[in-house]
Amino acid sequence: MVMKMGLNFPTIKKERQKIVNNANRGMDLEEMINQSNEYYLNNDIAVIYKKPTPIQIVKVHYPSRNKAVITEAYYKTPSTTDYNGIYKGKYIDFDAKENHNRTSWPLANISEHQVKHLKRVQDHGGIAFLLVAFSYYNEYYFLPFDVLNAYWKDSQEQGRKSIPYAVFQKQAYLIKEGFLPRLDYLKIIDEFYL
Amino acid sequence: MVMKMGLNFPTIKKERQKIVNNANRGMDLEEMINQSNEYYLNNDIAVIYKKPTPIQIVKVHYPSRNKAVITEAYYKTPSTTDYNGIYKGKYIDFDAKENHNRTSWPLANISEHQVKHLKRVQDHGGIAFLLVAFSYYNEYYFLPFDVLNAYWKDSQEQGRKSIPYAVFQKQAYLIKEGFLPRLDYLKIIDEFYL
Repeated sequence: MVMKMGLNFPTIKKERQKIVNNANRGMDLEEMINQSNEYYLNNDIAVIYKKPTPIQIVKVHYPSRNKAVITEAYYKTPSTTDYNGIYKGKYIDFDAKENHNRTSWPLANISEHQVKHLKRVQDHGGIAFLLVAFSYYNEYYFLPFDVLNAYWKDSQEQGRKSIPYAVFQKQAYLIKEGFLPRLDYLKIIDEFYL
Repeated sequence: MVMKMGLNFPTIKKERQKIVNNANRGMDLEEMINQSNEYYLNNDIAVIYKKPTPIQIVKVHYPSRNKAVITEAYYKTPSTTDYNGIYKGKYIDFDAKENHNRTSWPLANISEHQVKHLKRVQDHGGIAFLLVAFSYYNEYYFLPFDVLNAYWKDSQEQGRKSIPYAVFQKQAYLIKEGFLPRLDYLKIIDEFYL
């Protein structure tokens, strides 16, 4: 019986996800944000880019004068967030977080470095937030830094492990999915920040 | 005689550079900017980072479960500038350019992509500029985007190849070198932008 559950549950879950995810054709959060940023750029709405992944380069080989091949390198932990840029004169800074849980978003998915960075950004007058995908529900939330920070403090002081889904529903902003842009997260800034 | 000139000239030049460069102990522009940004960050003055170098990853090897070794990768051309961040609520965006010429800075050192990016930044209310090192003179200039853009247009329309050193002396801002921060380029923003 337990085994049967174990065998069946993923299948059911997969089917449900397939239906739910039909709208974005399996596109992941990063792709959706990149496409939205491209739309913002091409339509002169905002200038927001994803930063390159930081790589520690150890060995570079030069087979010819103008060609460099990196033959040994390692991923480094980013010290900031993945996205930043400018919108209506405001400095924008955020990170994107995928989440497959149904009931909460685990705080283990963000590093202390990133929280500190976002706090600095907000203290200096920028707009700091997270974009969190609840992929089970096919929902995308704009989580303001202040809400993140309250729960982050709780995690440091009280050992809290996650932010409940119900908190996203009440204190974060649901971003409507569209065609162009795919994920119009700047609309949230228009409505609640500017 | 020609040979003698050829032999002597680099020696003289090298000695002069050695004296001139004594103040920064051979530190390159990027190092100076990174140290300054660290100072700004640690003293809660500004949040400005260098973006990681964009790398195209082709092959990744996993010798163990938690370790990833990149075994084939290539340098990509950056589509934006190297530095951005926030200062006194303003979005800041710039690139750093080393220059060993004495009489001008060659416009071949900047790509059309970068000029377009800086223009967009300025159009959206950000502060866009270049930091150009004239290492022969041990001088560091803050070149406002508008000056760059005027000469860039000339290069596209009239075939201009460089911005004369005299233009830097008159239309760019000389940044005083210090100890902490090494290169206080935000002072120029205080004086001429805010």
